[in-house]
Amino acid sequence: MKIARVVGEVVATVVAPVFEGRKMLVCEMLDPDLEPTGGYELAVDSVGAGVGETVLVLDEGNSARQLLGVEGAPIRTVIVGIVDAVES
Amino acid sequence: MKIARVVGEVVATVVAPVFEGRKMLVCEMLDPDLEPTGGYELAVDSVGAGVGETVLVLDEGNSARQLLGVEGAPIRTVIVGIVDAVES
Amino acid sequence: MKIARVVGEVVATVVAPVFEGRKMLVCEMLDPDLEPTGGYELAVDSVGAGVGETVLVLDEGNSARQLLGVEGAPIRTVIVGIVDAVES
Amino acid sequence: MKIARVVGEVVATVVAPVFEGRKMLVCEMLDPDLEPTGGYELAVDSVGAGVGETVLVLDEGNSARQLLGVEGAPIRTVIVGIVDAVES
Amino acid sequence: MKIARVVGEVVATVVAPVFEGRKMLVCEMLDPDLEPTGGYELAVDSVGAGVGETVLVLDEGNSARQLLGVEGAPIRTVIVGIVDAVES
Repeated sequence: MKIARVVGEVVATVVAPVFEGRKMLVCEMLDPDLEPTGGYELAVDSVGAGVGETVLVLDEGNSARQLLGVEGAPIRTVIVGIVDAVES
Repeated sequence: MKIARVVGEVVATVVAPVFEGRKMLVCEMLDPDLEPTGGYELAVDSVGAGVGETVLVLDEGNSARQLLGVEGAPIRTVIVGIVDAVES
Repeated sequence: MKIARVVGEVVATVVAPVFEGRKMLVCEMLDPDLEPTGGYELAVDSVGAGVGETVLVLDEGNSARQLLGVEGAPIRTVIVGIVDAVES
Repeated sequence: MKIARVVGEVVATVVAPVFEGRKMLVCEMLDPDLEPTGGYELAVDSVGAGVGETVLVLDEGNSARQLLGVEGAPIRTVIVGIVDAVES
Repeated sequence: MKIARVVGEVVATVVAPVFEGRKMLVCEMLDPDLEPTGGYELAVDSVGAGVGETVLVLDEGNSARQLLGVEGAPIRTVIVGIVDAVES
């Protein structure tokens, strides 16, 4: 699981049916100091996250399907939380 | 899930049976600003994408099999959408 | 499986239900000489690890769910041991 | 899925039973212009590939087991085709 | 699957039950010329490998569990062979 910041949203008219009506958010990956690492992931939201928020991103197919309640869906990367802070 | 641009197609006469008759597209991976990241993936198409188009690429075996409707197929990477724009 | 050092904890009020009440630890990844490699993972604890400890981090969804006894949970990365030493 | 060139073969007398009698080929990973990327994979052959040939390499456990017809085998990386050309 | 050299062993008193009594070996990853690539993995042994030996390392959860005969175990990375030579 990684920390990321939501920085945008993908607009796609032609998509596989399971993605119709789902927000696909562009997540800039962060290090534990909340600095960008240079990588990104496109993730489906499960907690109501929006652009500018710091989020928890999970990248595992079976988890994603169970969390979203869509068996057999081609979804792998999901936002599972909104980060308040990282304490050390 | 990542954003990519279709830049070519693999021609392969000798392939495992499940790939016969399927287009295997060369996808140049992009960052959220639609600039190439240097990586690539070979993906099977599920939405009618062609060379030059910006696409959504999913890399997960169970998803790929369910999307294409071929149980037990050795397929892992699939194009699941065509990107109109990335909004931030 | 990798060696890591626990360096912090994520505070997140809004999370998917399965994470409520679980500690999400920030793990700085180490090489076999116990020097940081530059990467990190957020992991759920299964052995009572705390900040400052050197731990074994496992990154595989099916294992994580079975270890924590939560079927269908969106959890992939788990701390499975506390390292005393690396002998060569 | 990636493009690779077969550059060698691993000789191993002591192996897990499922690998006995199987060719384990050393695959130098290529980019779409068929230039080496610096990485490699050891793959089990499923299409009769040999040293010097350009091949399609699939890296996913469930696919590999189903393709080779060995349920429960510890095999993840398989050669699934021989590349004639990459057209752009 | 990758080639590696066993360079050490992890000593860990506090571990998840499935790891009790199992050797966790530190594997320095090698390229096909048997030169270190800079990466490492901690792997559970299945063929009697020891420090100094060149081995085959498999990194896939379902395979690992089936090979070791422990269903549901949080194990992903296993040594599946001892390399005699790499022929090109």
